[in-house]
Amino acid sequence: MAVQSLPPGQRPPGHPDLLSPIFWRDGRVVMIDQRRLPDAELWNSYDSWQDVARAIADLEVRGAPAIGCAGAFAAALAAGQASTAASLRVILRQIAETRPTAVNLGAAVHRMANALASGRDPVREAQAIWDDDLAACRAIGAHGAALLPDEGTVLTHCNAGALATAGFGTALGVIRAAIAAGKRLRVLCDETRPFLQGARLTAWELAQDGISAEVIVDGAAAHFMGTGEIVAAVVGADRIARNGDCANKIGTLGVAASAAFFNVPFYVAAPHTTVDVGTATGAKIPIEQRAAEEITQFGARRVVPVNAGVRNPVFDVTPARLVKAIITETGVFQGPYGF
Amino acid sequence: MAVQSLPPGQRPPGHPDLLSPIFWRDGRVVMIDQRRLPDAELWNSYDSWQDVARAIADLEVRGAPAIGCAGAFAAALAAGQASTAASLRVILRQIAETRPTAVNLGAAVHRMANALASGRDPVREAQAIWDDDLAACRAIGAHGAALLPDEGTVLTHCNAGALATAGFGTALGVIRAAIAAGKRLRVLCDETRPFLQGARLTAWELAQDGISAEVIVDGAAAHFMGTGEIVAAVVGADRIARNGDCANKIGTLGVAASAAFFNVPFYVAAPHTTVDVGTATGAKIPIEQRAAEEITQFGARRVVPVNAGVRNPVFDVTPARLVKAIITETGVFQGPYGF
Repeated sequence: MAVQSLPPGQRPPGHPDLLSPIFWRDGRVVMIDQRRLPDAELWNSYDSWQDVARAIADLEVRGAPAIGCAGAFAAALAAGQASTAASLRVILRQIAETRPTAVNLGAAVHRMANALASGRDPVREAQAIWDDDLAACRAIGAHGAALLPDEGTVLTHCNAGALATAGFGTALGVIRAAIAAGKRLRVLCDETRPFLQGARLTAWELAQDGISAEVIVDGAAAHFMGTGEIVAAVVGADRIARNGDCANKIGTLGVAASAAFFNVPFYVAAPHTTVDVGTATGAKIPIEQRAAEEITQFGARRVVPVNAGVRNPVFDVTPARLVKAIITETGVFQGPYGF
Repeated sequence: MAVQSLPPGQRPPGHPDLLSPIFWRDGRVVMIDQRRLPDAELWNSYDSWQDVARAIADLEVRGAPAIGCAGAFAAALAAGQASTAASLRVILRQIAETRPTAVNLGAAVHRMANALASGRDPVREAQAIWDDDLAACRAIGAHGAALLPDEGTVLTHCNAGALATAGFGTALGVIRAAIAAGKRLRVLCDETRPFLQGARLTAWELAQDGISAEVIVDGAAAHFMGTGEIVAAVVGADRIARNGDCANKIGTLGVAASAAFFNVPFYVAAPHTTVDVGTATGAKIPIEQRAAEEITQFGARRVVPVNAGVRNPVFDVTPARLVKAIITETGVFQGPYGF
């Protein structure tokens, strides 16, 4: 494991042209430690699948499509490490189960398993998964840009940006494409408790691109809808059920309900691989529960009394009827959904 | 200024029978420093109006009714400190304007000014304001308890508890009274960003009373409504307009919109003094904006990039049509409201 802390804005050797949180270079997986952003830009490079799996589990890399890329690269490393086909199968299952909610991880590992079974080169297959994700993000941006008004404030929750994908982003890809097309948009970023992806990641990557970004507490989203400032909400998804129910970072459902109340259009942007045709409705999507410490600790300080409990589901499911459209690389879908 | 750090659960001399965050004793205002909870129980005692006004501004004491008590005690101290009636009037105005959103502060200071003008004893009048608030909370509890189901999980946002009042609480008073009446209720506490009153204060004071309290991030409220776990939401209010629009801590509006979507009854509990008959609708309620640092800093760490902005309104306004009932000490009101 090589660790490299770079000055703000500087990228490691081999980094693609646009901001990418994870890429393959010379037999290693290179990724930015997203837990350390925005105050440190620390790039790690790994040559074992175990390191990459740990990085997924520890949220060093996060965002459903980026986790898919990480899983693909981990599988490519595992293909070189495993001594037998049987042990490789066990490893692939372990990688796929590192995190439960996003469907992209399982889908990417499944695609890698198929490629390996067909004798295709695992590194080329993993890179193809990465390339496909970037292309999907650009196509999502092109389709979604048309839906946003010519000016105003767009709300987003969590980080469905370059940092959550191979690059460009899904929800933020839509905003980037709209701005590139000349629309005058500014972004309100929900800080996104408990892990603060909106404050730490979304505001950081938008500022890198010179896009106006302001951070609000999650509870303020409804307020800015009520004042009429927000013209649209765009978020990503970790898994979309066949009926259009969308699992995404905890807090998304409240944004969607508030948007419905104030007639603000609420869009989900995600690659088509996020649709899990094996899941009929959102009720079947497993919701990851994470450690209580994400809530009990505020920096060094304990802010929840020791004799109180904590519940920490980190995803929720937005029912399809609250979603005005799902923007994918193959086009824009509207309800009733039937993937 | 005397500062006294007490062991957990121990109360300073003269403390009332039930938990009270602020009370008068021997010519001094005694208050618990709510910024230090739950990890330290620090009681301060002040004998100058300036100290009390600073404590209000710095959120050492918070919660609309408790701020009203603090303003009353500050006015009583000012009556002893001011050299002329004219200077006292100036001071009273300063005290009333220490925080802008809660109506109780202005109302309490106004009542003190009237008492002084009629030659009544200022300390007795301030104590009467405190006594009235405690009595109102108990009556609110009695009226509201009947509205809650016999068992289940109740959601609350911010702290409308003993710590926000002379004692017993408004929203938490309803829950306390229901439990005292034999209902089997547990409480989910929104942590309430940015100041974490739900995590630090609500969970703390419920745990003190042996009531089951679990803390969730604000964004998880809608999730637990969607799962069907939450049977009712009860919050306080900082100002209620004549038409029933309710200003309360930022995030309340999103809770109310989510509750409407999931058909969860949403109640506001507040003393009648919270109704501002001089304010026709919520649109006229001033919304306090607080420092960006409440959002940019997570403990010692800066979590918002330096080139991103922050918006920090700390109250929002829930339209009356989202409020199933407003519970006051004089009874339960339902829309259309016309106070």
